[in-house]
Amino acid sequence: MKLLKERILKDGRAAGEGILKVDTFLNHQIDPELMEKIGEEFYEKFKDKKITKILTIEASGIAIAVFVAKAFGVPLVFAKKTLSKNMDGEILSTSVMSYTKGLVYIINVAKKFINKDDNILLIDDFLANGSALLGLAEIVQLGGADLAGAGIVIEKSYQPGRKRAEAAGIDVCSLVEIEEIKEGKVVFKEEN
Amino acid sequence: MKLLKERILKDGRAAGEGILKVDTFLNHQIDPELMEKIGEEFYEKFKDKKITKILTIEASGIAIAVFVAKAFGVPLVFAKKTLSKNMDGEILSTSVMSYTKGLVYIINVAKKFINKDDNILLIDDFLANGSALLGLAEIVQLGGADLAGAGIVIEKSYQPGRKRAEAAGIDVCSLVEIEEIKEGKVVFKEEN
Repeated sequence: MKLLKERILKDGRAAGEGILKVDTFLNHQIDPELMEKIGEEFYEKFKDKKITKILTIEASGIAIAVFVAKAFGVPLVFAKKTLSKNMDGEILSTSVMSYTKGLVYIINVAKKFINKDDNILLIDDFLANGSALLGLAEIVQLGGADLAGAGIVIEKSYQPGRKRAEAAGIDVCSLVEIEEIKEGKVVFKEEN
Repeated sequence: MKLLKERILKDGRAAGEGILKVDTFLNHQIDPELMEKIGEEFYEKFKDKKITKILTIEASGIAIAVFVAKAFGVPLVFAKKTLSKNMDGEILSTSVMSYTKGLVYIINVAKKFINKDDNILLIDDFLANGSALLGLAEIVQLGGADLAGAGIVIEKSYQPGRKRAEAAGIDVCSLVEIEEIKEGKVVFKEEN
């Protein structure tokens, strides 16, 4: 996605070996116009798949995924990292390792929102180690739904996420693939 | 907001004294069409206030606030409940008590996103005890920005949130005010 590459080059920040900061427009401060365009882009990629629901994980997936859901005209469900008193009924849960936060957390989705008639598209901001994506795919499987694929905004191709996701049979579509981040420079995959 | 009241009556669930569940369309499964209409409604309410930024708190505020941000054509910033390795630079922090989760957490916003030239609109899904709203208002103050007001989707008027927010000088605008939830029935304020 050309617009997104330009934005990464303009506002992203290579903050050391392998680390890209996009907190000015994607995962802390958020540009809603860009979110809408990303939503439309994922619609184009998956529009033939008869998607019934979008599934993401709190928090930074939500702003993106709600525009994807709008483009498809389907509901968004987000997996929660904590159980609140407001969650009741049967819960689908699995564990996810966060490398950036250095911990393992349990993600939870109310069973009533994942049904055997659903064909679900996963959405997330980053694909790095793939733990979040594999966790979401497991939630889909636990709920007996079909998994249509995964839409990722930024894939770090130098990390094992795609390999792990594909080994699990997940069709991964990334809007931008980054080959490496080196000496303060972001190198996109097809430029190599 | 008539549409929202109808949706609460149709899909909300009074789950015991004072408890309203809206997890099928607002804070776990999310209806993106409704989010867009809510965004437009808040724009109508605050359009004369020269809003420069929307501030909310993860996770359930984000899907609403990103559509408010889109309606205003300004960025959204969301306060984070955990510090990740991806946050650096100066951080504005304060503590917030969560009654539904039974804990106190620290909310964090990178200082670079809250500036003295900003006129900030707070957005959240619920106003109950007001702790989250007061925490967000404190972040605005710590950053030296102006606070234009707070847009709330559902206010529980039987809890002290509004009184506490107004005592702190916050202009609160709620799309729906609930007077009580009793014997499985939601009573809206103006029907009393």
